[in-house]
Amino acid sequence: MVLGVRLYSALYPSWGPVCLLPRSFASCSGNPASCCTMPRLGLLHGRAWAVLFGQLRRPPGAVCIGAVHSHSQVAEAALATQLKPHQEKSNFIIKTPKGTRDLSPQQMVVREKIIDMVVSCFKRHGAKGLDTPAFELKEMLTEKYGEDSGLIYDLKDQGGELLSLRYDLTVPFARYLAMNKVKKMKRYHVGNVWRRESPTIVQGRYREFCQCDFDIAGQFDPMIPDAECLKIMCEILSGLQLGDFLIKVNDRRILDGIFAVCGVPESKFHAICSSVDKLDKMSWKDVRHEMVAKKGLAAEIADRIGDYVQCHGGVSLVEQMFQDPRLSQNKQALEGLGDLKLLFEYLTLFGIAEKISFDLSLARGLDYYTGVIYEAVLLQPPAHAEEEPLNVGSVAAGGRYDGLVGMFDPKGHKVPCVGLSIGVERIFSIVEQRMKTFGENIRTTETQVFVATPQKNFLQERLKLIAELWDAGLKAELMYKNNPKLLTQLHYCENMGIPLVVIIGEQELKEGVIKLRSVASREEVAITRENLVAEIQKRLSES
Amino acid sequence: MVLGVRLYSALYPSWGPVCLLPRSFASCSGNPASCCTMPRLGLLHGRAWAVLFGQLRRPPGAVCIGAVHSHSQVAEAALATQLKPHQEKSNFIIKTPKGTRDLSPQQMVVREKIIDMVVSCFKRHGAKGLDTPAFELKEMLTEKYGEDSGLIYDLKDQGGELLSLRYDLTVPFARYLAMNKVKKMKRYHVGNVWRRESPTIVQGRYREFCQCDFDIAGQFDPMIPDAECLKIMCEILSGLQLGDFLIKVNDRRILDGIFAVCGVPESKFHAICSSVDKLDKMSWKDVRHEMVAKKGLAAEIADRIGDYVQCHGGVSLVEQMFQDPRLSQNKQALEGLGDLKLLFEYLTLFGIAEKISFDLSLARGLDYYTGVIYEAVLLQPPAHAEEEPLNVGSVAAGGRYDGLVGMFDPKGHKVPCVGLSIGVERIFSIVEQRMKTFGENIRTTETQVFVATPQKNFLQERLKLIAELWDAGLKAELMYKNNPKLLTQLHYCENMGIPLVVIIGEQELKEGVIKLRSVASREEVAITRENLVAEIQKRLSES
Repeated sequence: MVLGVRLYSALYPSWGPVCLLPRSFASCSGNPASCCTMPRLGLLHGRAWAVLFGQLRRPPGAVCIGAVHSHSQVAEAALATQLKPHQEKSNFIIKTPKGTRDLSPQQMVVREKIIDMVVSCFKRHGAKGLDTPAFELKEMLTEKYGEDSGLIYDLKDQGGELLSLRYDLTVPFARYLAMNKVKKMKRYHVGNVWRRESPTIVQGRYREFCQCDFDIAGQFDPMIPDAECLKIMCEILSGLQLGDFLIKVNDRRILDGIFAVCGVPESKFHAICSSVDKLDKMSWKDVRHEMVAKKGLAAEIADRIGDYVQCHGGVSLVEQMFQDPRLSQNKQALEGLGDLKLLFEYLTLFGIAEKISFDLSLARGLDYYTGVIYEAVLLQPPAHAEEEPLNVGSVAAGGRYDGLVGMFDPKGHKVPCVGLSIGVERIFSIVEQRMKTFGENIRTTETQVFVATPQKNFLQERLKLIAELWDAGLKAELMYKNNPKLLTQLHYCENMGIPLVVIIGEQELKEGVIKLRSVASREEVAITRENLVAEIQKRLSES
Repeated sequence: MVLGVRLYSALYPSWGPVCLLPRSFASCSGNPASCCTMPRLGLLHGRAWAVLFGQLRRPPGAVCIGAVHSHSQVAEAALATQLKPHQEKSNFIIKTPKGTRDLSPQQMVVREKIIDMVVSCFKRHGAKGLDTPAFELKEMLTEKYGEDSGLIYDLKDQGGELLSLRYDLTVPFARYLAMNKVKKMKRYHVGNVWRRESPTIVQGRYREFCQCDFDIAGQFDPMIPDAECLKIMCEILSGLQLGDFLIKVNDRRILDGIFAVCGVPESKFHAICSSVDKLDKMSWKDVRHEMVAKKGLAAEIADRIGDYVQCHGGVSLVEQMFQDPRLSQNKQALEGLGDLKLLFEYLTLFGIAEKISFDLSLARGLDYYTGVIYEAVLLQPPAHAEEEPLNVGSVAAGGRYDGLVGMFDPKGHKVPCVGLSIGVERIFSIVEQRMKTFGENIRTTETQVFVATPQKNFLQERLKLIAELWDAGLKAELMYKNNPKLLTQLHYCENMGIPLVVIIGEQELKEGVIKLRSVASREEVAITRENLVAEIQKRLSES
């Protein structure tokens, strides 16, 4: 079974550029981690290719398709491989999947700050934590998202259940409530969701993104939980200092009422609603054109709709709509208007009414909303004129969904729900952009003290000392070198923003002291070893 | 297009039990969220079934297969549906996918405590945070996990890249290093990974589970980072108070050396290594049988291996192996033994040598390890005799993988790495079990103060008051009712462990005060409104 060194690409030109086997298996280290003991046939850029994996350099991206035991088997397997020239690509690139990204330590620090702030607000409002799996049975997500269902990531059927990655945190929450027969719950959930959208990264849109959700489930008196959701959105957006913002509010029942009184056939409610939803990106003229030309709506009906959906204002607009001769004839619209009036009353008590706009063009994409809906937009991002403008769209949204839990319940028992979702990715883009503009420096570690030495062969003493610091709960680092230079060690502290250095050398060891150095002032004092931890803790608490 | 009320199941018995349409579309609310305006034909338990979705009760699990516009279309579509009796299931069950679970608020509190403790240890050792996507390009995970590759979850090819859910956090970390040409990094990563294993939930094994990883990448002097990894494992396992534990240590090079000097053919290294790996669950007799009968190893070779792999001990065993006449002839084994000797020296300086056992049976499953490997096991779980015993196996593990980054690098540049992974799920099972045994009560919210009233029609005052508390950063709740009973409000505080209640009524309003009540002592004092927040903060800081 010994194979000679061969340049298979010369023998079989169609195989591609790299194709080596070692002289003999005796030259193989036999280490199962870095080498396997038989050659394998693989594919690289659509070309068959063989090598002793690991032992010799394997072109990155080569995919193993099977083990081969002899020279003739290599040839056979290669011939059996169908080569399709159009599959060839010129370059193999190491990357993350389309629409996804790694978060660097700098980004993680910013992300954590934002999420901590959001979660502490959710906890301030009495929410419990909840977590659900990343994927659900596919049927749990069916019929929940309307036109967007095509964006759901399905898992491959590997002989088991049919599964899909969660598309939001709301449907899993409703599934949880129904499954556990929970009738009342205030919960928050921070987690990733996945949507196969065309990624437009400049707008802070990704295929994997983090949502921070807060929801109140249960039968309560009208508009009290709804008002709290809007209060939470205000607290978070103010707290994150993203500049001025506005929360648009509407009600699905008012929209339906408008469609009904304008004469839209019920079969077109959905389609016309999704046209209205585009008013934040398109002019009324273009939306009207879509309604008439693409969706077959009579022009005069479209015009009537236009009179309504171009309206926005405060509580006075609610009053105005109550007086509207057509809309006031529609039972559903009246219910929605009544609730909005009550909502504005509560928002005034919360001191946030001036942040809220009753906006008849707000429609929201998701199927499951049944009542009040809302969406927060930044008014003039970014806050500072010298920054580049950044189009971020809405940063938070939500609404009432009273029917969703019932869709999961075997007996159809309903649990009314209202909630909100903070779009952390978009907020994150804004904060990141602001920091780039101002060249802000972020510490990516929290190290408080560094253990250094000016002398050679002092690793053992450094290790003993750092273990003492760790065991006292101090955040400490040292250089993983036997004999690092003192200057290198001190430079590292300056670069990483580590405030304190403890220095141990022969002299100190003899005297039973440690030198404690402040990185900023470069001052050094000798401290007895017994007092070292206390002195470090004192200094840290003072800074 | 008006359809009469019909019990379609009577007309078409094969359709199943529930099959209703409303009297007329006029009775339909037309709300697109709770109802669609045309009946749809669906499937339930393999049976065709039609309803006006949402408006009437839809049997849970019914899957829509199309809209129908008339009575005859309903019939037609039903006939076109191929019914397969074997697809029928007696019950639709709402559940999470096999091997996954929701985390309830109680569980989330425990989980968060454990993860906070682990992360604070990682930060104490100077690690930066990093996050990678939940899925990777499939080819990134190829050839990394050996026999376990079959457990990888693939995503369905929906016309795009071929993707797989990450199987661990180590391979994505190596991919990140290679992709960004990072040569040196100390990072931690807490995140879920997914493996299609047969779930044995009693052992705390799930198909979705959380890993807490700490890794040190870079070229350093030998065994210093490796020793720190073991120190971290000790700090975490001690800190979590899981009872006594032991960390088994071995080296892949020593194992390979043993196989070589015992006369195992290199082609069988992998197979024999995975037999050795079973020694923690099987007796040597059974493992020997597997080697000889199933893997075709000569009996005398197996016996020679048995002499080695049944050994375990402290640093003296390292010395003993150095003297071993056969093993001392093997270059690789000598390298491994030299490193282990150095490692024990550092572990002694860290004060943890007595927690470490040199165990020649430790093999570790993953392909990518190249040097020292380790695994922490609990010695006598659980800590208390009155608890039910719980089999949890290893709770943390890791090792050195110097070749993995090079597999991603286009030029094969290597970045040596060493790291560890904490198995949070298993630790979580132990802590949960312990809490159940002791009936510990866990607060699932952090609410500090509750806003109550003894009077009717005081919602407005309650809302104004709670907004003041929220805006002052206090964690506050109220009842979402217009007129809740005082007793109900106070009971809620007792049940939820909320320490303080502020009570507002007509009398208080007149006098400009608020009553502040301690839930535990039931004492009440009147506080002026201006001083309320300060007084609450004072009381909270005292408790």
